[in-house]
Amino acid sequence: MFDVIAFDADDTLWHNEDLYAAIQGKLRHLLAQYQPAAVVDQTLYTTEMRNLSYFGYGIKSFTLSMIETAIEISEGRIQGQDVQTIIHFAREMLNSPVQLFEQVEDTVADLSTSHTLMLITKGDLLDQQTKLARSGLAPFFSHVEIVSDKTGPIYAEILARYRLVPSRFLMVGNSLRSDILPVVAVGGQAVYIPYHNTWLHERVEDDDHGQSKPYFELEHIGQLPALVSRLSSEDA
Amino acid sequence: MFDVIAFDADDTLWHNEDLYAAIQGKLRHLLAQYQPAAVVDQTLYTTEMRNLSYFGYGIKSFTLSMIETAIEISEGRIQGQDVQTIIHFAREMLNSPVQLFEQVEDTVADLSTSHTLMLITKGDLLDQQTKLARSGLAPFFSHVEIVSDKTGPIYAEILARYRLVPSRFLMVGNSLRSDILPVVAVGGQAVYIPYHNTWLHERVEDDDHGQSKPYFELEHIGQLPALVSRLSSEDA
Repeated sequence: MFDVIAFDADDTLWHNEDLYAAIQGKLRHLLAQYQPAAVVDQTLYTTEMRNLSYFGYGIKSFTLSMIETAIEISEGRIQGQDVQTIIHFAREMLNSPVQLFEQVEDTVADLSTSHTLMLITKGDLLDQQTKLARSGLAPFFSHVEIVSDKTGPIYAEILARYRLVPSRFLMVGNSLRSDILPVVAVGGQAVYIPYHNTWLHERVEDDDHGQSKPYFELEHIGQLPALVSRLSSEDA
Repeated sequence: MFDVIAFDADDTLWHNEDLYAAIQGKLRHLLAQYQPAAVVDQTLYTTEMRNLSYFGYGIKSFTLSMIETAIEISEGRIQGQDVQTIIHFAREMLNSPVQLFEQVEDTVADLSTSHTLMLITKGDLLDQQTKLARSGLAPFFSHVEIVSDKTGPIYAEILARYRLVPSRFLMVGNSLRSDILPVVAVGGQAVYIPYHNTWLHERVEDDDHGQSKPYFELEHIGQLPALVSRLSSEDA
């Protein structure tokens, strides 16, 4: 039924948002002498949103936003050594081990025997490439697309470039905003696997008011092969 | 003769290194109270090389290296406002207009009528995409590859993915290190168009000792269609 099954990476295959949250905790601690945690969080989020169109997604962009937050929160009194500490946070993030979710390896290995698998992720090019390499999952993916954003037009461009029929393309991810709704909007199919910790920017309201949703939802990636198998047999 | 003609972007199609050099001049000025220009330059270069494997190429990586340089040069005494100024440098770079070299538009338009054109560039994903969009050249390129580095294995991967015969692939660029030698190493053909201002990291010694070079060299991109035409007729 599906010509390609595509996966989001961060917080779909491996932990990511927890790492950002941990580093944000360290930033709060670093700036605690200037402002309470809630002000740091709010200033950081506002700064990230302002910087998104300039710096895009990923660790380097996050780091520049943390530095600007530190300058703003401290009213320019931040010490050089503390700015250096923030840049060390970036290296710590880039060096941190890739922690796969449970059953990811078996699920991806299993599906790769019957389907062409694609990875579609946004963020820093080099960081995402090295994470994939370190994850051990690279051999299972025939195609890897690292994109600057995940919107309808960007999915449409990928579908066109690979000459894929949208209805035979399945995207799996944890973000309604980035992985599910834009794919459904261009005629693709999608499996939403919610994650407990979702970045505020990726959250959207569930506004279906009890209507049936135009996508599938699973609690765990380990349930994916059974869903794919069921859909394929219904289709046959 | 060529199935695909691929172009490097920065300093092949449009000015780039001049922008980095101008911003580096501003950094020298900002740090003049701490150290002379030569020390700033040397510290920045050392910092960039150390950061390359973490942060990769591009403006965000350069900005993080400028900030670390400022902290080191000032022995931690750099003011928050000056760090903010460096982050403003990054926005200035990202916002600066794309300045095409002379004859680029005519040359690319001309070759696109007879050949499949590809763009292969490294740097920040979002920045390179928006530069291509602003350049007005996007319609002429059938394929765009934004890569984290330009090495033999990366070119080999692109050739394999597009199922290209290396000898029928021509790469055009200004960097012997990134655009020419790795392409020749994997059996491709290459046209070197030197640029007056090449980043130290991209320089390699010309060690051919009078032997004939395994690539073509042109003074100006405007000479490219004639070369392609000549090679095609020799091949016929």
